[in-house]
Amino acid sequence: VLSYIDYMEKKKRKICFVITSKIHYARSRFIMDELQKSEDVDLQLIVGGSALLRKYGNVLEHMEEDGFSPQSYITMNIEGGNPVAMAKTTGLGVIEFTTAYDNLKPDLVVIRGDRFEVLSAVIAAAYMNIPIAHIEGGEITGTIDESVRHAISKFAHIHFATTSQAADRLRRMGEDPKYIFTVGSPDVEFVARAEDSPDVTNELINEKRGTGAYVDITKPYIMVMQHPVTTECDQGYEQVEKTLNAIHELEVPAIWFWPNVDAGTDGVSKGIRVFREFVDPKHVRFITHFPPTQFTTLLRHSKCLVGNSSAGIKECSYLGIPAVNIGTRQSGRLRAENVMDTPHDKEEIKKAVTSQLEHGLYPQSQLYYKENTSKNIVDTLTSIDLYIQKKFHE
Amino acid sequence: VLSYIDYMEKKKRKICFVITSKIHYARSRFIMDELQKSEDVDLQLIVGGSALLRKYGNVLEHMEEDGFSPQSYITMNIEGGNPVAMAKTTGLGVIEFTTAYDNLKPDLVVIRGDRFEVLSAVIAAAYMNIPIAHIEGGEITGTIDESVRHAISKFAHIHFATTSQAADRLRRMGEDPKYIFTVGSPDVEFVARAEDSPDVTNELINEKRGTGAYVDITKPYIMVMQHPVTTECDQGYEQVEKTLNAIHELEVPAIWFWPNVDAGTDGVSKGIRVFREFVDPKHVRFITHFPPTQFTTLLRHSKCLVGNSSAGIKECSYLGIPAVNIGTRQSGRLRAENVMDTPHDKEEIKKAVTSQLEHGLYPQSQLYYKENTSKNIVDTLTSIDLYIQKKFHE
Amino acid sequence: VLSYIDYMEKKKRKICFVITSKIHYARSRFIMDELQKSEDVDLQLIVGGSALLRKYGNVLEHMEEDGFSPQSYITMNIEGGNPVAMAKTTGLGVIEFTTAYDNLKPDLVVIRGDRFEVLSAVIAAAYMNIPIAHIEGGEITGTIDESVRHAISKFAHIHFATTSQAADRLRRMGEDPKYIFTVGSPDVEFVARAEDSPDVTNELINEKRGTGAYVDITKPYIMVMQHPVTTECDQGYEQVEKTLNAIHELEVPAIWFWPNVDAGTDGVSKGIRVFREFVDPKHVRFITHFPPTQFTTLLRHSKCLVGNSSAGIKECSYLGIPAVNIGTRQSGRLRAENVMDTPHDKEEIKKAVTSQLEHGLYPQSQLYYKENTSKNIVDTLTSIDLYIQKKFHE
Amino acid sequence: VLSYIDYMEKKKRKICFVITSKIHYARSRFIMDELQKSEDVDLQLIVGGSALLRKYGNVLEHMEEDGFSPQSYITMNIEGGNPVAMAKTTGLGVIEFTTAYDNLKPDLVVIRGDRFEVLSAVIAAAYMNIPIAHIEGGEITGTIDESVRHAISKFAHIHFATTSQAADRLRRMGEDPKYIFTVGSPDVEFVARAEDSPDVTNELINEKRGTGAYVDITKPYIMVMQHPVTTECDQGYEQVEKTLNAIHELEVPAIWFWPNVDAGTDGVSKGIRVFREFVDPKHVRFITHFPPTQFTTLLRHSKCLVGNSSAGIKECSYLGIPAVNIGTRQSGRLRAENVMDTPHDKEEIKKAVTSQLEHGLYPQSQLYYKENTSKNIVDTLTSIDLYIQKKFHE
Repeated sequence: VLSYIDYMEKKKRKICFVITSKIHYARSRFIMDELQKSEDVDLQLIVGGSALLRKYGNVLEHMEEDGFSPQSYITMNIEGGNPVAMAKTTGLGVIEFTTAYDNLKPDLVVIRGDRFEVLSAVIAAAYMNIPIAHIEGGEITGTIDESVRHAISKFAHIHFATTSQAADRLRRMGEDPKYIFTVGSPDVEFVARAEDSPDVTNELINEKRGTGAYVDITKPYIMVMQHPVTTECDQGYEQVEKTLNAIHELEVPAIWFWPNVDAGTDGVSKGIRVFREFVDPKHVRFITHFPPTQFTTLLRHSKCLVGNSSAGIKECSYLGIPAVNIGTRQSGRLRAENVMDTPHDKEEIKKAVTSQLEHGLYPQSQLYYKENTSKNIVDTLTSIDLYIQKKFHE
Repeated sequence: VLSYIDYMEKKKRKICFVITSKIHYARSRFIMDELQKSEDVDLQLIVGGSALLRKYGNVLEHMEEDGFSPQSYITMNIEGGNPVAMAKTTGLGVIEFTTAYDNLKPDLVVIRGDRFEVLSAVIAAAYMNIPIAHIEGGEITGTIDESVRHAISKFAHIHFATTSQAADRLRRMGEDPKYIFTVGSPDVEFVARAEDSPDVTNELINEKRGTGAYVDITKPYIMVMQHPVTTECDQGYEQVEKTLNAIHELEVPAIWFWPNVDAGTDGVSKGIRVFREFVDPKHVRFITHFPPTQFTTLLRHSKCLVGNSSAGIKECSYLGIPAVNIGTRQSGRLRAENVMDTPHDKEEIKKAVTSQLEHGLYPQSQLYYKENTSKNIVDTLTSIDLYIQKKFHE
Repeated sequence: VLSYIDYMEKKKRKICFVITSKIHYARSRFIMDELQKSEDVDLQLIVGGSALLRKYGNVLEHMEEDGFSPQSYITMNIEGGNPVAMAKTTGLGVIEFTTAYDNLKPDLVVIRGDRFEVLSAVIAAAYMNIPIAHIEGGEITGTIDESVRHAISKFAHIHFATTSQAADRLRRMGEDPKYIFTVGSPDVEFVARAEDSPDVTNELINEKRGTGAYVDITKPYIMVMQHPVTTECDQGYEQVEKTLNAIHELEVPAIWFWPNVDAGTDGVSKGIRVFREFVDPKHVRFITHFPPTQFTTLLRHSKCLVGNSSAGIKECSYLGIPAVNIGTRQSGRLRAENVMDTPHDKEEIKKAVTSQLEHGLYPQSQLYYKENTSKNIVDTLTSIDLYIQKKFHE
Repeated sequence: VLSYIDYMEKKKRKICFVITSKIHYARSRFIMDELQKSEDVDLQLIVGGSALLRKYGNVLEHMEEDGFSPQSYITMNIEGGNPVAMAKTTGLGVIEFTTAYDNLKPDLVVIRGDRFEVLSAVIAAAYMNIPIAHIEGGEITGTIDESVRHAISKFAHIHFATTSQAADRLRRMGEDPKYIFTVGSPDVEFVARAEDSPDVTNELINEKRGTGAYVDITKPYIMVMQHPVTTECDQGYEQVEKTLNAIHELEVPAIWFWPNVDAGTDGVSKGIRVFREFVDPKHVRFITHFPPTQFTTLLRHSKCLVGNSSAGIKECSYLGIPAVNIGTRQSGRLRAENVMDTPHDKEEIKKAVTSQLEHGLYPQSQLYYKENTSKNIVDTLTSIDLYIQKKFHE
């Protein structure tokens, strides 16, 4: 077994990148590309969590097409879509990531975001004395993710903040300023750089994928993404019902994405299924998942994003797409002027969507954007001094 | 299933206290007594982790004698005494605590400290939307516990800080000042209030317990407690060897406690076993564990505490016992004047112990002490408004 | 802690009954009733596995209505519907059942069948030296369940066989004849004793439950239950497609139940969803789950059961309902004359269903039936001498 | 992902050999050598369980010296040395082996024996539809291992029995005769083929290893190996005390090996430690572990093996070394004439050891021996047709 010092003296840094959801992969593509290209890096990939669940799309296929071969697969999600399932998944993930690191022996683990699967990857690395780089620390959001994100920061050794406000918060929390870098959002870099996919056609949307009504994407349409709120996980059914009715009554063509696996997902999914069965809305098409470039193409040409996805706050701010943000899931997050907030109330939602559709495109915001986000992250990852013992920076 | 609101409207708060080590139990006795006495509280006890390991003493017997009956037992420690074992234990703990909470349905979980078993209990509660009260947040220390402690704070809803400096740090980290209480250290309250145990006699120490040389406790003796440092876990053997040789050469009667289960424990234990086998020191008696009151009695009458236990920093500051603190495990922690720091160096350790023995007792420090620590904690636990969704306090 | 001998001397036997699926509960009702009524028994209930998954129906509600209060809940199913998920669920289950037994300290654990969740419950009990009573050992069936069932028998101390052939097989396998009892099938006892539920109306079937076409249950209808075959788990999609097309082309009104959680379930479910979306069969109604009495009522009045459920072999043999059994899932199982076997072939399935519909009801078979199954089981459970160390009976 | 059929068509069979204890490795060396040499085999090695515990010796070092490089390491043992720990270890093992197989995708898994770690490896493979070859099925023994061994046989597809009686039993249990091979015991083959290690000197035994008295191995000595009996796990302390006193009073030089990790190990270990502390026997040396060749050398030259290890029954039958077998751990196992059985009774043990020492060497028994055991196993493993679905062979 090599000691920590031995690792450090070797030329190539073994950098382990952790993918735990399809969207996470999409938003990390450029970073992974840079890591793969770097001659100083031995890239290790661990794919786990909902990224492996078929019903959320086959990320492994996309990765293979993109030239990535993961070293390790971690099936870890407990079924149930409730707090118990989410908590146990986190625990199982810690066990599994530990074994993966024990076999791969990385010099550095790179993770991003605030999800429970990410927390698993972080705790395993922390106890195994592996330095951790965290992307997107210091931001504010709702749900349990708010606590998780900051807890991850307290474990992480290197921080890539999207905004200067987030970087400030990290400093305030006692993180070492030498290890905090403000690089912009990789998500926004992705929409900024990704070109339209020629695959996004009426045929793809309406024949090959999805269920429900036919939505002509050569004409105006909106998009809806409403995820469960873990801290309000028994209200998912009621919450999504409000949005469903609002969109139904507006009679605006809509492409609706199914929710993620967080606690409460069963309520949200059931709400959608029941609505489909009994109301069968004539303007809404339901899609389970989409490769990232296709998703971005669809988003770029939509008239409004409705729901509680961070895409409304981040990606849309850069694209200028009007967003209607419902409920508390994104509360506290820094917003550009493209966002209109509403409570879970049918009439309020209808009003907000109508108003946003009337307004149309907003000017591009640089709030979450910086040039060369991924390149800067990788340059730092390959060159920065690594350390293990953290200290509260007073 | 009762909703969160329903729980809140019920008269008795279901407060779940988590015990994960024998020492943790000792230091929590008064809080548990107060909770048990309170008419507003339905006390739930979960005993897990190293508290259940026989070789660290039978805490269940002590608890029974003290009138406590746990609701749930959680065997969770992975064998190995290394980072892999510590990480996996944390993961298994999250799974197990989730099931325990799911069965007990507490309104509030109370945890303390910075150990991996505590982190398990916290993560499970956090994802299950159970409010968390944390004792001893905001302090600085070495090892991975430094990161864990702050991460726990970012999950916790109610904070009981031991010192005003710790409380300041919690505020800085974005915790809500309304929920931060400076109450002093329960550990120090315990030594302040506990009376000498009549059971601590030469017979107990030298016949009923321990191995090694005979140490006459009616004459001057020192105590040694040296735990592994998780972030230096492959150096445990060498580190303890230095201390063993120093104590051996000083020829001062010493009572030496075996290390805890942290990563590196195997190295430290092996160091002690090899030393015993080959050197067989004539002034040192080795003890595996001790009930809290007996430990406190022994400490109060010792001439010096050597090693890297927090007892040297906290309990000894109040008792005025000179402490020789070795290495980084307590680095950053607030000290009274009773502490002399040394590196892992035989000569330095000998010099420091000699100097402390010459100095003798220090004046009592109030650094970690406040009156009514436990009572104030319990008053707050029973009356404070509970909430789930955390927000970074800007 | 009480020793094993102490337990045995206490008057009331602590008998722990394990429920891991909704159907399992249905088929165990009478045994549980008898156990609950017995004055010699302290009944402990553990509910775990897919019994807790909302999408398979709320068994907890049914249990409460029936007067049962479980001591312990075990969320344990890994998501994925594939071999990895099934294997990991088994492992997690072993961990969780161990904790449950450690808290409940049963004298005897009663389990039934051959599912992975049951295997978990058995392994935990075996290593904890708790005697195990197994219902339905010695039978032959397909899939991995074939191996699991016999492995469970090798762990079990008391065997309740449904048929004399099964009892013979248990003896051959080295089980002690003194501990093998031929009692008939509890499933068949349930259909024999359960009266028609007045709740089973067109309104329930077509308005309150299910999706798809309207099926008038006052007119002739068939039922379909097709589960994944774990050892052919990547063929679920193709297999169910054959049956779907056969039923669709036959144009016979059908009530179709969704598959269970075994590996391959995602393929089967997807097959159904795709078929619904693109073919939208006009004679088929899809139901996710049903309380046992209602299910039995529906089955008793159906004209044929199609698929690979054991109900076609067991319950239907007693009811005389014609069954079309498709594929290998039930291969080797003892059949009455009501069963017609077919491969996964659309035309063969159509031919078999047509032939069975023409034939109509078969005479009642006693193959799986004996009087007082549940009562005899419980009489034995309460009075038999318990032992721990097993020995191969030569 | 390759389908099962695809795997089969590839030239090289991916055969995964599982090592879960040091002794297990020793006894599998020749099989592993043959597999490594075979041009038709892609050998995969998983090392897990107590094989990774440092205190039982560093098997990884031995493996490296012997030219093997494991693909996967699985830390999985729960601390406690009691039934709870043993059960949970099994569960954790199932989870971990599943991930390992999911990454390695073996065509065939080879396991041996009856230990809980082996059961984990088997259950994971079974649910993942990977064919299993089992070495040493069909034998009788005491403890929970008796149940485990037969349960493993019911999961296994290929059986390598050590004796014809064991093979008979496998057939009786419904295993397919075409897949049962009587090959002799690999353990016995090892002692038959292994040459004396020149490293086994007084210096090694008395200076480099072990604790306690000096035992001159150039003069007559006996060996003692007493493991816990899982089904009597609370009697380990008393049981070992009897043997310790017997050996002590006999005043015969003895080399005593520490017990394995089964439930009850803490009692046995404590018994030894207490005895050492208070009695300090003048003729006994205690050894924690030993590389296989050294162990065999030591055994071959000993005058008697005392305790309850299978080595007394198997290896010693071939070597003709007298064995005193104490208690129930090996009950039911086929014996040659070299074995004298005694209960846990000091006087009986003394009498038996004295009688065996007087008797001296027995003639070599072929009971467990056949030529070319390992070669025959590997020839079968590389050429036999593989299958997944098991069927009870009537």
